[in-house]
Parts: sequence; C-alpha cells; structure tokens
Amino acid sequence: MYSLHELIAMSERELAQLPYPARPAGLYEPIRYALGAGGKRIRPALVLMACNLFQEAVTAAKPAALAVEVFHNFTLLHDDIMDNADTRRGKPSVHKKWNDNTAILSGDAMLIYAYRLLAGCDEKSLPRLLTVFNEVAVGVCEGQQYDMDFEKRTDVSVAEYLRMIELKTAVLLAGALKLGAICGGGSDMATDLLYKYGISIGLAFQLQDDLLDTYADSDEFGKPVGGDILEGKKTFLLTNALARADEPARRSLLELLSDRTIVPAEKIARVRAIYDRLGIRELTEKAVAAYFADANLALDALEVAPDRLKPLRELTAELQGRRK
Amino acid sequence: MYSLHELIAMSERELAQLPYPARPAGLYEPIRYALGAGGKRIRPALVLMACNLFQEAVTAAKPAALAVEVFHNFTLLHDDIMDNADTRRGKPSVHKKWNDNTAILSGDAMLIYAYRLLAGCDEKSLPRLLTVFNEVAVGVCEGQQYDMDFEKRTDVSVAEYLRMIELKTAVLLAGALKLGAICGGGSDMATDLLYKYGISIGLAFQLQDDLLDTYADSDEFGKPVGGDILEGKKTFLLTNALARADEPARRSLLELLSDRTIVPAEKIARVRAIYDRLGIRELTEKAVAAYFADANLALDALEVAPDRLKPLRELTAELQGRRK
Repeated sequence: MYSLHELIAMSERELAQLPYPARPAGLYEPIRYALGAGGKRIRPALVLMACNLFQEAVTAAKPAALAVEVFHNFTLLHDDIMDNADTRRGKPSVHKKWNDNTAILSGDAMLIYAYRLLAGCDEKSLPRLLTVFNEVAVGVCEGQQYDMDFEKRTDVSVAEYLRMIELKTAVLLAGALKLGAICGGGSDMATDLLYKYGISIGLAFQLQDDLLDTYADSDEFGKPVGGDILEGKKTFLLTNALARADEPARRSLLELLSDRTIVPAEKIARVRAIYDRLGIRELTEKAVAAYFADANLALDALEVAPDRLKPLRELTAELQGRRK
Repeated sequence: MYSLHELIAMSERELAQLPYPARPAGLYEPIRYALGAGGKRIRPALVLMACNLFQEAVTAAKPAALAVEVFHNFTLLHDDIMDNADTRRGKPSVHKKWNDNTAILSGDAMLIYAYRLLAGCDEKSLPRLLTVFNEVAVGVCEGQQYDMDFEKRTDVSVAEYLRMIELKTAVLLAGALKLGAICGGGSDMATDLLYKYGISIGLAFQLQDDLLDTYADSDEFGKPVGGDILEGKKTFLLTNALARADEPARRSLLELLSDRTIVPAEKIARVRAIYDRLGIRELTEKAVAAYFADANLALDALEVAPDRLKPLRELTAELQGRRK
C-alpha cells in the first residue's frame, strides 16, 4: 500500500515522463509548460489511492490518473483566458506567455490528450471509465458556465452556489476517485461511496477557500486577503450573508460591494464586519466541518480493512488542517 | 442500401433530435445554434455510408456519425475565434453572436459531447473507435496549428502544405469513414482502404477550394474570388508557384503579396498572371484529378459488391464536378 505522498510523487514522476511529439512546437510546448508548472497533483493521487484500496499495484489506474491531471490542466488553460488570469502557480499563464489562440488550441489538444490517456486503460473497464469521465467533464464545463453567469447576478442563492462549486470543483475530485475505484475493481457500492467522499471533500475544500480568502492570516496565506470581497465574488460567505441579512442590510451590502470609491482595505474591513455581525464565519466553519464529517462517514461505510484507508484519512486530515 | 442524399437527410434529422439540457442556457444555447446552422453534413453521411457498405442497417453507426459532426462543429467554433471569422454559413459566428468566452466554453462542451455520443457505440468496438477518434482529433488540432504557423512564414514547402491540409481537413473525412467501417464490421483491409479514400477526397477537396478561390467563375462561386491572394494565404497554388519560380520571380511574388498599396483587383490579376505564367492552374487541376483517381482506386480495391459502392462513387463524382 502506498502513502498519500508516495502517490503524489508517483503522479509527478509519471507526468514528467509523458511523451510529446516535437512538432508542431506551437501546439506542444505550451502543453509541456502547463503540465510541468507544478500543482498539488491531488487529483491523480486520488485516482491511484482509490485503486490502491482494492489492489496492491496501482499500475492499472495510472492512465486514468494521468488523464484526470491533464484534463484538470486543460480546464486551467481555458479558464485563465475566460477569467483573464495573468499568472498560474507563480508563472505567467499560457495565454499571457503566448496568446489566447495558443491557449485555446493547446487546451483543446490537452482535452483530447486526456481521452487518449484514458484509452490506455484496460479495455474491459473502458466503456464505464469513459462514461464517468464524460459526465465529469461536462459537469466541470457547466460549473464554469454557472460561475461566469453568477458574476452578472446579485441574486445567487446558497443552493445555486453550492451546485456551482459541486460541478466546478467537487465533481472532478469525486470522479477521480470513481475512476480509480473502477480500475482497481472496487464494487459499485464502494465506487459510489468514494464518489460521495470526493464530493464532500471538494465542497469542504472550496468553502475553506472562501473562508481563507476573507479570514486567513495574511502571512500564512501567502497572498493578500480579501480578493473575493474586492471582486464582489459570489462565495459561500456572500451568498449566505445576502440570505441572512434583512432587506436594508442586503441592499447596503450590495452597494458597498459595488462601490468603487472606497479604498480596498476599508471595503474589506466593512464587509467583514457585516459578515461578523451575521455570524457568517462560524456558519461557514460549521459547514466545512460538516462536509469533512460527511467525507469521513463515507469512508467509514466502505467495506475495506481500516488500515487501507490510512492514505485517504491522512488526506482528509491534511485538507482539514490547512491554513492556506 | 441508402443513397448519399438519404444519408445526408438522416444525419440532419438525427442532429435535430439531439437532446440538450436546458441549463445552463449560456452553455447549451450556442451549441444548439451552431449545430442547427446547417452545413453539408458530409462527415456524418460518410460514417453512415461506410457502415452501409457492410450492413443494411446503419443504426450501429449513428452515434459515431453524430460524434463526428459535433466534433467538426466544435472545431469551427474555436477556429472562428482563432481566425477572427465573423460569419459562418451566412450567420454570425458564435464568438460574434455571443463572445469569445462563450465560444471557448461551449466549444469545449461540444468536444466532450462528441465523446459522449461516441460512447453510445457498441461496447465491443468502443476501444478501437476511441483510438481512431483520438488520432483524428489530435490530427485536426495539429493541422490548425500548422495553418496558423504558416501565416507567419514565407518558406512553406508544397509537402508541408499538403501535410497541413491532410491533418486539418482530410484526416476527419478519412476518420469518419474508418469509424463507420468499424461500426459496420468491415475488415481491417476495407477499413484502411476507406481511410485512404477519405484522405484522397479530402486533399482533392481542399485543392479544389484553393483553385476555386482564385479561378472560379465569381457568379457561380457565390463569394468574391481572390480572397486567398489578398490574405497572402499559403495555398497549393502559392506554395507551388514559389517552388517553381526562379529567385527574382519568387521575391517579386512575395513582395506583390505583401504590398498593401495595390488595389485588390489589380493584385489578384497580377498574382493570377504569375500563376498562369508558371502553369499553376493546370498543375493544380492535374493534382485534383490525381487525388480523385486515387480515391476511386481505393474504392476499386474494396472487396464489396460494386453496386454497394454507388453512394461513394456518387459522392466522388459530385465533389469532382463542383464549381463552388
């Protein structure tokens, strides 16, 4: 059995060994750059971890693990164009280093490359793997669309927000586990429980992100706190605040967020004060804890020897303890 | 057995019946718009035609036929952004009607949708179909990359140009036939011959395009003649002219093409005069005829009853006779 960090290291090694055609360089250089730029490699590790629950060797899951990580990086290439993000993991994003057309086309090739990698899985499992992969991929696109739609709306409900982050973030983590479990020969029940676990840690992770962006210790966090507030981003915090506030408070919160004359630090402090008054921090902390509890319950229900669950428990604990 | 036009009509009907989720509308509306905007539906008809060589029913090939057409339309969405094309089939292109982000994300969802459709094929054939589809899809991206690369180069050889159009155009036609043959249970030899037929008609088709763009009767052609010359596009005509010309003629042709002070009609006439002097028109007409002859040779070698080849012969003849 492999530890979480062994599987992350294995993912990194396998990714580094992926072959690329030399030409056309304009298509493959950006792919190599994007996949070599680091990242936590949580998703391929999840694929391998799920497989490792049912098999000592994880070889059978390697193609799916790589497919998931290449797919994830494809979404980053295209999202960075759509979100106009200039940097990614401390380096220029592909559309900044090259241009939009390069990021579009190399992204397309990465999506196709992900399917090529997936096609390297065992033929018997392939139809099922392909179905899961397709569902996940469509879900991620739908999530990105909702995320963009929400930018233009002020009436996003908490339920809508949760559905969006489920699609945009959680479904890929859950799908990674499901693919790994299928490769490892897990039962349908086990596969479904792992999917549920993935959804729960995905939601918990995103809610933590929302929380940290507003409440983190800025030294520990590594980037300025309050970015979501300044962008007026519909987060778990904001959608809950808008839901809890009475009509006058709701209106003044929306006005405050759209006010471009207030200095950033003051805007952040004032929004945070409203959140504090409404108990948004505690509410979110409780929601995060509840999702992590759900995640552990899904693991409890798995019919595998408890010691085999160590890497997944370890991951849950690491995520739960993060401060950045 | 179905005729070419029956299979085109069937493709149109099947496409019109494709279900789309209602939400998020921002993702699915552009897909419905793009797929409903017409098009010749040659590619899905090729899938069905190839299947129909080996089976009376074409049901087994319908998912692959739809996958190919959805994939083709995905490439149009993204190519229209990259090429800054404002219209498509007489209507605003998706990135003009909506915006770039919409065309990127809806395009991505279409590519995934193509894979979902493909996954509806018979499970036994799926691994092979997926491999063919992946190869084709990567090839099309590589072709688009070369096409964009060529815009910045003046030293594109005829061989490079042919390789580019093989990837960008011919490989999808060939792949469509190969997928259909696999669905229909054709032998490996038959499948390969159909692939070759597809490459040949694809190359012939693109060379005809190049020829018509410079030499068509503008009334019959339906759009202004000479667009490629004004854009300085690397076509079969231009790459051959540059290869045939001596160094001074080569240099003056390149200067003429990049000269922005000459009025369009004169530029077109002068380039055409150079082409005429170099015998480029006849050369291209011969190449087109040779590719169509290759196409028919591939069909001749197929071990199926000659009458079953009627739709493919009909297609070849229709393509060969086109004036627009």
